Order: sequence, then structure tokens, then C-alpha cells
Amino acid sequence: MNPPPTEACTVAFLGLGLISGSLAGALKAAGWRGQRLGWGPRAPSLEKGRALGLIDDFSLDLDEVLTAADIVVIGAPPKATAQLLPKVINLAVECGSPIVTDMASIKGFIVDSLQQVYPGFIPGHPIAGSEHSGVEASNADLFQGREVILTPLPDSDSRALLAVEGMWRAAGARITHMSVADHDAALAASSHAPHMLAYALTAMLDDHELAPIKHGGGALRDMTRIAASDPVMWRDIALTNRDALLDAMDALAMEHSRLRALIDAGDGDAMEQYFLRCRQVRRAHDSILNPLMPSGEDQC
Amino acid sequence: MNPPPTEACTVAFLGLGLISGSLAGALKAAGWRGQRLGWGPRAPSLEKGRALGLIDDFSLDLDEVLTAADIVVIGAPPKATAQLLPKVINLAVECGSPIVTDMASIKGFIVDSLQQVYPGFIPGHPIAGSEHSGVEASNADLFQGREVILTPLPDSDSRALLAVEGMWRAAGARITHMSVADHDAALAASSHAPHMLAYALTAMLDDHELAPIKHGGGALRDMTRIAASDPVMWRDIALTNRDALLDAMDALAMEHSRLRALIDAGDGDAMEQYFLRCRQVRRAHDSILNPLMPSGEDQC
Repeated sequence: MNPPPTEACTVAFLGLGLISGSLAGALKAAGWRGQRLGWGPRAPSLEKGRALGLIDDFSLDLDEVLTAADIVVIGAPPKATAQLLPKVINLAVECGSPIVTDMASIKGFIVDSLQQVYPGFIPGHPIAGSEHSGVEASNADLFQGREVILTPLPDSDSRALLAVEGMWRAAGARITHMSVADHDAALAASSHAPHMLAYALTAMLDDHELAPIKHGGGALRDMTRIAASDPVMWRDIALTNRDALLDAMDALAMEHSRLRALIDAGDGDAMEQYFLRCRQVRRAHDSILNPLMPSGEDQC
Repeated sequence: MNPPPTEACTVAFLGLGLISGSLAGALKAAGWRGQRLGWGPRAPSLEKGRALGLIDDFSLDLDEVLTAADIVVIGAPPKATAQLLPKVINLAVECGSPIVTDMASIKGFIVDSLQQVYPGFIPGHPIAGSEHSGVEASNADLFQGREVILTPLPDSDSRALLAVEGMWRAAGARITHMSVADHDAALAASSHAPHMLAYALTAMLDDHELAPIKHGGGALRDMTRIAASDPVMWRDIALTNRDALLDAMDALAMEHSRLRALIDAGDGDAMEQYFLRCRQVRRAHDSILNPLMPSGEDQC
């Protein structure tokens, strides 16, 4: 764990999909001087990544890749990350102790999978994604202006933290720190529960006798876009952040029921106030939610 | 009610906002030969519309505008439309009986406001909008590939129907017909209830102690965009399509609760199937929901 200057670090991506491919592409676009390597259990996505120029080279031999790497980025859904992480750390100890980080959408379940203290491990979560998946959907701009939440552990090494921060900043992201528990509760509300809403809305529309999804416009386009997200990843998130997700879903259901009561009562003044407040809240967060948009211009 | 060839009709917009301004702009862009006139209770938005070239001229005198018009388009939120429509039809009878159509998001409440049979009235609803409002937010492409639902009444004149269809086709829209009741039930599910979801989600996030909206990405951007919609319009929609909206909200709440039960039970297989089905449903409707996008490329 004596990495070279951050931008000269060799970065190894374990699993090459949309997110890790986008990070590899963003580092390349930023002029990253270190090598970008890939590892995975099978060659096809790695070959695609190399053909697209996202990685310089790849290997199917994990020891080899860990030995070559200064920073190891695990790019996998939550359950696969939790399975791979202890194995990676066991091997890393014997392979020069590279820095290890992950990108899973939940952090408690990942941290719970650790079998030993490893100061070079920095749990991370980039708040960026797409309803598409696979390395061929990679987008080097995916992290521009987006938040990457790091949840360093009490025994995390500060140089490892700085290196992981430097890598993400090179990709265009901004860094925040949270505790593992706060991360999982906040993301349950800001991401996981909204995905469940989009799923429930899509299923309800599909079951409706009038096929209302055929009469959708821009509102429905946006409210159902993430219902096309990767089913395995979202199954894993729902399984591994269950308690926080159920809390957020319950808070949402209660709020929905409060709004229903105003509508049932025909209370126009209260509705108008409610909707006005939401407009103000949404507009106050435009620049966070649309970091690449000119201020005030949402896509529509 | 002997209109000239459709594309030579003088169209009068009663109330000039985002939707009517966009229609006026779309007709202009399509080379519409007839005049485009504006009327409203106050001059400022009409002056803006004229300055932007959306309308050729305007008047604050309703009789004058109705007499000049072949097609009258009422562009107002539901309650204002229902107030204006009977007055417009009373006057229209004495002003050459122009064709009259409206663009309100609910149709039952509008049709119920009629005080006399007027064969030239064709109720309509373009499935297009924006979270922005006002004539300055007009967009001549707003209706390209979008659906316009017409709900002709038993006594509607077929020539009037053809003229209104021709106007919308010139603006780039495609036409469907529905009954008033089916329209209101389908739109409650495809548009009105999704707006209430976005409002409830935004309110829940705003009340959350961890300020999770600050940690939102593209998913939350899309799931809250329409929470910035016009509060008065959405109050009116919730007041005037109450029963159908409550039905759709209840169906959504039930579906959300079904999904919650799968998560609570940790039933990974059932969740994966559920999410996979939603992905397939969403993708099957990509071209309807994203008419201007190349196939398979959603914005993200």
C-alpha cells in the first residue's frame, strides 16, 4: 500500500459493466497516466472493454491482476460484491496490498461481508447509473458533476482514502463522506424506494384494463424509465438493504396516503400549498439532480 | 360552421400559455396558412406571444376574436376551461359558429359544464406538457409524435372533428379517440396518479432527517421532475377528476404494498421476476413514451 501519485496508479476493474466501464472511460478521457486493467470470470465483456479502448488489457487470473494493481475497483451488484470482496482482500494481502474500493449501492451489507481488517479498503458508491447495463452502454460523462459517497471505516487508511478520492475526482465526480448506516438510510429514500415506485407504477399500468401506458407522455416516460433497470441488481439491493428500504417505502406510502386524504376531501387550498411546496423543493435541487444542465433548464 | 380548408383556418387561442403557445408555434413552423390570433383577459402574455411570433395578433375582446376565428382553442386549466366554455359557446352561436375545442387534462368535468348542445365542440387533450409554464416556455416540437386524444360527443359534427384533427396533425401529433369516461380513467392512471406519486415522493424526501434529496442522481431527477409542475393546474385536475384519480392512487398503493410484501419476505426470485416483467413492459412502450428518441435510446 505505497501507491504512486494517484493519476499514475494502475487501476484494476473487477467485473466490467456499465459503471466500471464508464469509470475506466472517464479516467482515459481525463488523461489518467496509470494502466487500466480488467478482470472477470469470463472474457467476452473484457474483450469488448478492450476493443472499446476502456481498458488497456485484461486477465482472467485474479492474482495477476491484484499484483499489478495500485487501486482495485470491484464493479458488481451488491451480492456479487459481498461474495468477491473477502476473497479479494485475502488475496490482496499476498499481492502487494493494493487499495480496494467497491461501487455497490448499499454499504452495510458489503461491510458486513468483511472477514478481516484491511485498512486499504474504502467502501464507495457513485450516485450515477442508467436503466441500461453492460460495458457497451458505458458513458465517460456518467460521473460528471455527480456525487460519489465514500463511507470510510474506523480503520481505513487515510492515504487509501485520498487515492480513491483522487480517482473519482479525475472522473469528474464530487466526493462526500457518510457513515455506512446513514448512507443506506438516505439512499433507501433517494434511490431504492423511488425504483420500487417506478416498478409498482409500471406493474399497475400493465394490469389496468384500459392499457393506460399507451397514453403516456413525458411524465410517464420519466416516472417509468428506471423500471427498465437491471432486475438482478435491484433484487440484490432490495434483499440487502431490506430494512432501510421498507422504512422508506412505508414513509412514502404514508405520504401518498396523506395526499390521497386531501384529494378525497376536495381540499383545493391544501393541495395547492402541497404542490407549490414540492415545486419549490424540486427547483431548489435542480442543480444537484441535473449537474450537466444549464441552471433552470430541465430536460422535458 | 363552414370552415375553409383546414390549413387555411383562422385559429384563435383563448388564453396563451405553454400548451397553446406551443401549438401556435407548431402551426407556424408547419406553414399554417390561416391567421393565429390570441385572446385573454390581460395583455402581457398575449404581447409576449406576439413578440415571440407565436400569434399574428391578439385582442382583449372575445366577440371580436370569436367572429374572426374558424377554430377556437381554449387553453386553460380544467376549472378555468369549464368556466369559459359555456360562455364561449353562448357567444359562438352569435359569432358565426366557429369550431371550438379545448385541451384540458380531464374531459368529464369539461363536458359536464356544457349548457347547450353545440355540434362544433370537440373535446381534446394533447398528451404533452412540461413542468414549466407560461407562453415563454413554448416549444414548437412539443407535440411531435405525441398523442392527442379527442373525445367527440354523440352530437359532435364530423366536419368539426376533421378540422380539429387536421390542426393537431399539422402540429405533428397523432390522433386517437376515446370515450370521455375511458379518457378520464386511463389518464388518471397514466398521468394524474404518477404526478401525485412525484409529489408524495418529493414531500417525503423533504421531510426526511437525512435530506436524501441531496444525494439524488438521474433516477431521482426523473422521479421528481414533474413535482415542479404548475400547482394550480394540478389542484384543478385533482379536484375535477377526483374519483378516477382516487381509484388509480388506490391501485398504485395496492401494487406498492404487494411489492413491499415480496421485499419483506425476502423473496428474491419473485422480485427478480417482477422487475424483469417491468423492464419488458417499459421497453415495449419506449417508442410511445420517447417518440423523438432513436429506438432503444432513452435519455439518462
